[in-house]
Amino acid sequence: MAKSPEEQHPVKAFGWAARDASGHLSPFTFSRRATGEEDVRFKVLYCGICHSDLHSIKNEWGISTYPMLPGHEIVGEVSEVGSKVEKVKVGDRVGVGCMVGACHNCDSCANDLENYCPKVVLTYNGIYYDGTMTYGGYSDSMVANQRYIVRIPDGMPLDSAAPLLCAGITVYSPLKYFGLGEPGKHIGIVGLGGLGHVGVKFAKALGCKVTVISTSPNKKAEALEHLGADSFLVSRDQDQLQGAMGTFDGIIDTVSAGHPITPLLGLLKSHGKLVMVGAPSEPLEIPVFSLLAGRKTMAGSGIGGMKETQEMIDFAAKHNIKSDIEVISMDYVNQAMERLQKGDVRYRFVIDVGNTLAATKP
Amino acid sequence: MAKSPEEQHPVKAFGWAARDASGHLSPFTFSRRATGEEDVRFKVLYCGICHSDLHSIKNEWGISTYPMLPGHEIVGEVSEVGSKVEKVKVGDRVGVGCMVGACHNCDSCANDLENYCPKVVLTYNGIYYDGTMTYGGYSDSMVANQRYIVRIPDGMPLDSAAPLLCAGITVYSPLKYFGLGEPGKHIGIVGLGGLGHVGVKFAKALGCKVTVISTSPNKKAEALEHLGADSFLVSRDQDQLQGAMGTFDGIIDTVSAGHPITPLLGLLKSHGKLVMVGAPSEPLEIPVFSLLAGRKTMAGSGIGGMKETQEMIDFAAKHNIKSDIEVISMDYVNQAMERLQKGDVRYRFVIDVGNTLAATKP
Repeated sequence: MAKSPEEQHPVKAFGWAARDASGHLSPFTFSRRATGEEDVRFKVLYCGICHSDLHSIKNEWGISTYPMLPGHEIVGEVSEVGSKVEKVKVGDRVGVGCMVGACHNCDSCANDLENYCPKVVLTYNGIYYDGTMTYGGYSDSMVANQRYIVRIPDGMPLDSAAPLLCAGITVYSPLKYFGLGEPGKHIGIVGLGGLGHVGVKFAKALGCKVTVISTSPNKKAEALEHLGADSFLVSRDQDQLQGAMGTFDGIIDTVSAGHPITPLLGLLKSHGKLVMVGAPSEPLEIPVFSLLAGRKTMAGSGIGGMKETQEMIDFAAKHNIKSDIEVISMDYVNQAMERLQKGDVRYRFVIDVGNTLAATKP
Repeated sequence: MAKSPEEQHPVKAFGWAARDASGHLSPFTFSRRATGEEDVRFKVLYCGICHSDLHSIKNEWGISTYPMLPGHEIVGEVSEVGSKVEKVKVGDRVGVGCMVGACHNCDSCANDLENYCPKVVLTYNGIYYDGTMTYGGYSDSMVANQRYIVRIPDGMPLDSAAPLLCAGITVYSPLKYFGLGEPGKHIGIVGLGGLGHVGVKFAKALGCKVTVISTSPNKKAEALEHLGADSFLVSRDQDQLQGAMGTFDGIIDTVSAGHPITPLLGLLKSHGKLVMVGAPSEPLEIPVFSLLAGRKTMAGSGIGGMKETQEMIDFAAKHNIKSDIEVISMDYVNQAMERLQKGDVRYRFVIDVGNTLAATKP
């Protein structure tokens, strides 16, 4: 007979979980495995709230298993390491992002692209090698194989680093892979949310000329003055669109709602690339002539491998790139989800797990 | 007052043209410019019939101007060269493909990609630098700037070389640019027509493992035995599709009719590339998850630049790649168009202009 989450593993743990598709989160007692020889255990200090947490707790993608303990932007301090761990030591500052396992035998794994491994194990709502459910970072402790542990550089604030483990790598990886994050390249960032606002910062730090493309004219000052974009394009303004046709080397599209793609393809220069990192649920309509005329590319990209995630965090530390965050207490999480649903956050909620979780214990 | 096609230029010319959107072709007397100092004039010997000739004479893309004299797979023998021409001499065998001019100032032109120049001048139904209409290869003579002249290697049959100037470069260019035409790569060719059948030959000569993907099971023997493909996949057979998921490095899609794209994306490995070279008039429906999961790319590609076209022809001569053709006489052209409409040709009609045009003079 299957054991309860509290009894599956020897180490007691506590967090907040959703019990059903209402998505309501509440205190949850469970257990985590003992520290294996390749494992790193750490005390969770902060965990970001990704928009996919909201989709997942409400089962909007139809693949949720309950109880579900979300969170895949997790940072904290190492409390124990296995005998074969050389990467970090007790007391080090570390993080875990969207995944905690993969097959380690396929081409993707061999190329440090565990994120594209068909057997990737997600940080929560996944099934671990031992058959148990994975639980995320809205919890007091975390344990993961050292391959999935990211070192947080000295001096980097932990709270604003947390969202980079998902949002940061999601925009950094395509900028690098598709040859867009290079000095002088003109890059568009579509959507100014959790992904888009760090997209602007990474593209600028990589030397690009950055234009924010948004439906909301009232985000202009924010984009230019606060985030440091070079220009701002209102995507519903036909004159602005027309004036910018054929001027972009690449566009990173972070929008998860359905939206017109043809104008974005028109903004690209010949041989330009449009990379989708948001995931609209409805299929996109693509006129083939928009791709043929100018040999344009449309691609998708999803997070990044562990090696590149470490590279991204080191780059962010060096260039002082942080996510703009609103730090909340654990017991505010359900309100935060409601506000996130309305887009009412600039730009990422981060739960102060270290200081506020324990007080919610029953 | 505008001059008639017969009087615009000093050199008399004769061919077959369509006068309206009925698309019916008939004898047509016109004129061509004198041989400029950078120009090459040649006697047309053969001209291929491209499917876009059919679209154009019937104004199916809504951009046709009449009288229209089609043909952009043109080969023949040099009869005169301008004083600054060093590329070829009288008596040489040459060809002209889809274009005869471009701006020569933009990034695309600077990178030998005249085909992506916004001011590209098409071989027919285009407007030349002097403001006159361009007329294609269903005619007794051709004149073009030497930049747009392709040398046909010794020993290469002219008739089966003609279609390579459009169909050949259309498949060769994406195989090279997208890194697909490399030894050991598994490449799918969707559609076995004028483009697809030479796509198989080029991909094989480049060392790829080639699978023909077709809706018609009865093309299997042809694909494997005659064209030399390694395998054949019936795209309507769910079991075959399922068995081949995730096994292709790249797919060249030559189909111009609307068709499902999601299964093709599913056939790609992670980081695989689907390149459209056919142009369905209806927008394609693309589920973004199909691109995100595996960082897949969908792109378009249209013919190729002149430097690459010469490279393609030289490669074809070296590897004995020919288009499979049915040679017809000039006065058969309207029947050929009817058969082309029904897909009744294996795989390209080529007009024997040199031996059959003169007899049709009024």
